[in-house]
Amino acid sequence: MAVQAAEIPQNTTSAVDLGPAVALSCRECGERFPLGPVFACESCFGPLEVAYELPSGDVEELRRTIEAGPKNIWRYAPLLPVPADVASHPNTNPGLTQLVKADRLAKELGVTGGLYVKDDSGNPTHSFKDRVVAIAVEAARAFGFTTLSCSSTGNLAGAVGAAAARAGFRSCVFIPHDLEQGKVVMAAVYGGDLVGIEGTYDDVNRFCSELIGDPLGEGWGFVNVNLRPYYGEGSKTLAYEICEQLGWEIPDQIVIPVASGSQLTKIDKGLKELIRLGLVADKPYKIFGAQAEGCSPVSTAYKAGHDVVRPQKPKTIAKSLAIGNPADGPYVLDIARRTGGAVEDVDDEQVVDAIKLLARTEGIFAETAGGVTVGVTRKLIENGQLDPALTTVVLNTGDGLKTLDAVAPTTGPTATIRPDLDAFRAAGLAG
Amino acid sequence: MAVQAAEIPQNTTSAVDLGPAVALSCRECGERFPLGPVFACESCFGPLEVAYELPSGDVEELRRTIEAGPKNIWRYAPLLPVPADVASHPNTNPGLTQLVKADRLAKELGVTGGLYVKDDSGNPTHSFKDRVVAIAVEAARAFGFTTLSCSSTGNLAGAVGAAAARAGFRSCVFIPHDLEQGKVVMAAVYGGDLVGIEGTYDDVNRFCSELIGDPLGEGWGFVNVNLRPYYGEGSKTLAYEICEQLGWEIPDQIVIPVASGSQLTKIDKGLKELIRLGLVADKPYKIFGAQAEGCSPVSTAYKAGHDVVRPQKPKTIAKSLAIGNPADGPYVLDIARRTGGAVEDVDDEQVVDAIKLLARTEGIFAETAGGVTVGVTRKLIENGQLDPALTTVVLNTGDGLKTLDAVAPTTGPTATIRPDLDAFRAAGLAG
Ligand SMILES: [Zn+2]
Ligand SMILES: [Zn+2]
Repeated sequence: MAVQAAEIPQNTTSAVDLGPAVALSCRECGERFPLGPVFACESCFGPLEVAYELPSGDVEELRRTIEAGPKNIWRYAPLLPVPADVASHPNTNPGLTQLVKADRLAKELGVTGGLYVKDDSGNPTHSFKDRVVAIAVEAARAFGFTTLSCSSTGNLAGAVGAAAARAGFRSCVFIPHDLEQGKVVMAAVYGGDLVGIEGTYDDVNRFCSELIGDPLGEGWGFVNVNLRPYYGEGSKTLAYEICEQLGWEIPDQIVIPVASGSQLTKIDKGLKELIRLGLVADKPYKIFGAQAEGCSPVSTAYKAGHDVVRPQKPKTIAKSLAIGNPADGPYVLDIARRTGGAVEDVDDEQVVDAIKLLARTEGIFAETAGGVTVGVTRKLIENGQLDPALTTVVLNTGDGLKTLDAVAPTTGPTATIRPDLDAFRAAGLAG
Repeated sequence: MAVQAAEIPQNTTSAVDLGPAVALSCRECGERFPLGPVFACESCFGPLEVAYELPSGDVEELRRTIEAGPKNIWRYAPLLPVPADVASHPNTNPGLTQLVKADRLAKELGVTGGLYVKDDSGNPTHSFKDRVVAIAVEAARAFGFTTLSCSSTGNLAGAVGAAAARAGFRSCVFIPHDLEQGKVVMAAVYGGDLVGIEGTYDDVNRFCSELIGDPLGEGWGFVNVNLRPYYGEGSKTLAYEICEQLGWEIPDQIVIPVASGSQLTKIDKGLKELIRLGLVADKPYKIFGAQAEGCSPVSTAYKAGHDVVRPQKPKTIAKSLAIGNPADGPYVLDIARRTGGAVEDVDDEQVVDAIKLLARTEGIFAETAGGVTVGVTRKLIENGQLDPALTTVVLNTGDGLKTLDAVAPTTGPTATIRPDLDAFRAAGLAG
């Protein structure tokens, strides 16, 4: 992962038009670099993130522009690293997914202050990854890349394949060779190149890092590596949408799944931007991180009071959260502590129970990651860390259709009967 | 299926508030009946449909009301059999799915007049069934039903289970006992009762008809039987959305899948309502029906010049369209002929090819039914029945995740390699 600012290709300069984005800045030392396909600071190797000159005009005019904008993330184009005419580009146009008022779930969990589920299974390939990939596509376009790529074990491969197809990029996605057939089909159906790597997911990542540094990878945009600073900004749209859908108000509490931790940190960044712009009133909010016990490096550090996150070897059914060495772990700890939130985890059985609870009460069939956030919400209420009298938003970041195996062993017919009324009466299901 | 108007339960009168819906009327003899959970005419056994008193005020005000309304089908509440405050009821709130400008698919098919895919995989349970079930839920509420039910082999079971969970109904869904496990899980995960019937899908339907006529079924709303007149109206919202998304214009040509034929006839009904209300300009439009060759009773009748549809025994991978004796078949023939459209079919291999074509060009992974409409569109262009110089909308009514088996045998990695650059170079995928 040694691509640094010095290696910016010739075709990229700070003259690229990515709307309000004006530079990359190092999250550790603050040094600034021109916009380009780079992700690590020249001076300190810290992660780079997008720096903006945000709109400074009339806030009510900005609000009206957003509300009259496209019914997807591009309504927030003035706050994203994308050109102003982004909505006219071919892209998957994710976002503006439902914020479901979850009254029946609230009753079961004892939440009285208002409970909402932000349901990102409504995105084009049914996970929040469509948000981040859509932004990466625009960066790839601006930098003149022709191939979109990533390493993946699931959701990301589909999101990249679909976005590349729509936007007219070639795609080449790398996966461990022994993935289940269903996941391979979802990654391959969009017609890009799909390469199975003989090795583990770590081997796939190592291979991709080599490829980025090699002439073989010239013209390749890896959405979560050399395009990562842009890609990550897509998660801010979750914060924007939640606040707009609540009538331009920040909720008191938000429960967010933690894989690399990027989503949680970007949601916090998005909330702070809305406050700074005056689109929402400044108020305290608490951010909670949710992990699966089988891959809980951040919640373990949180509970131990540590600032450093010790890597773990993942073993959980929540595979989309199974990042044992989360890059943004320390930032997550900082945000949870600063806002008065927490980081908590639940075991696989609790994940499955929570998936079923959400499905039974709200008709939302969540991926295992959604089971993690709902399960952690329940646990945080039980142990007194989350206040049930406050407005709470829980994220569901993916679709249960993609992780059927999690619930299949314990989900089936109530009864199997002959097709006659006597058999039905005997089954005791009338009434 | 012998429930007639005479058997309206005591708790239902024409005083129920279903917004602009004022009566049921027989599609054959025109006789009118009060709003109730009935579906067949007392006099002639013809199908009943909802009759409206549509808004008669200022059309520009109606347009503004719609455009400022919820970002789902309830924006059209003034044109649907639902109470005016429907958006405040717990429901799945489907609709306003993407109308994708499919330029890359257009290029492959040679369409120059503008090609759009209406992608209903974005609905809450990822098929158009969420639209019809959402309306049935409101009717069930109005009529005082407490259990929602249906017979199903797939999409409908999930849509009913999810909607019942969200809306706080009990659900009891009937399926053939030998469905694939994945489909059983999708039907069962919402926690309602799921009953496997030892028999074929026909046996399941026969059993449900008996149950409706028996005291055991009291208080049960079968969405596609005794609530069918309301349920069917949900498909009108596809017409409304397509026209609104095209800037309040009717497209020249629409390609619609044909199972029972209800969706096609209701889209035609919706277009006529928009014209009558003045929300769109009156203009000629052509409606095309799409079937799979292995279940093509309507296209067979169309090609033979018959008015009568002869039942077939279905054998196709497009299972969500596999209705061998389509109730609305004659109406489909009439609409296709009256508008200058056609009804065409493609074989299973063409369905798979079309799924892949749509995925590769637009990043949309369609259910087999979507493969049928795209495949038929291509065939209609090739045989000169669909004019590529006209604006054309093609429906994708469901999600490829639900019919993975269709593409799995022919969809996989481009290459499988060791994790090193030499192996990648040898695979010839760089550049
Ligand atoms: Zn630095
Ligand atoms: Zn009649």
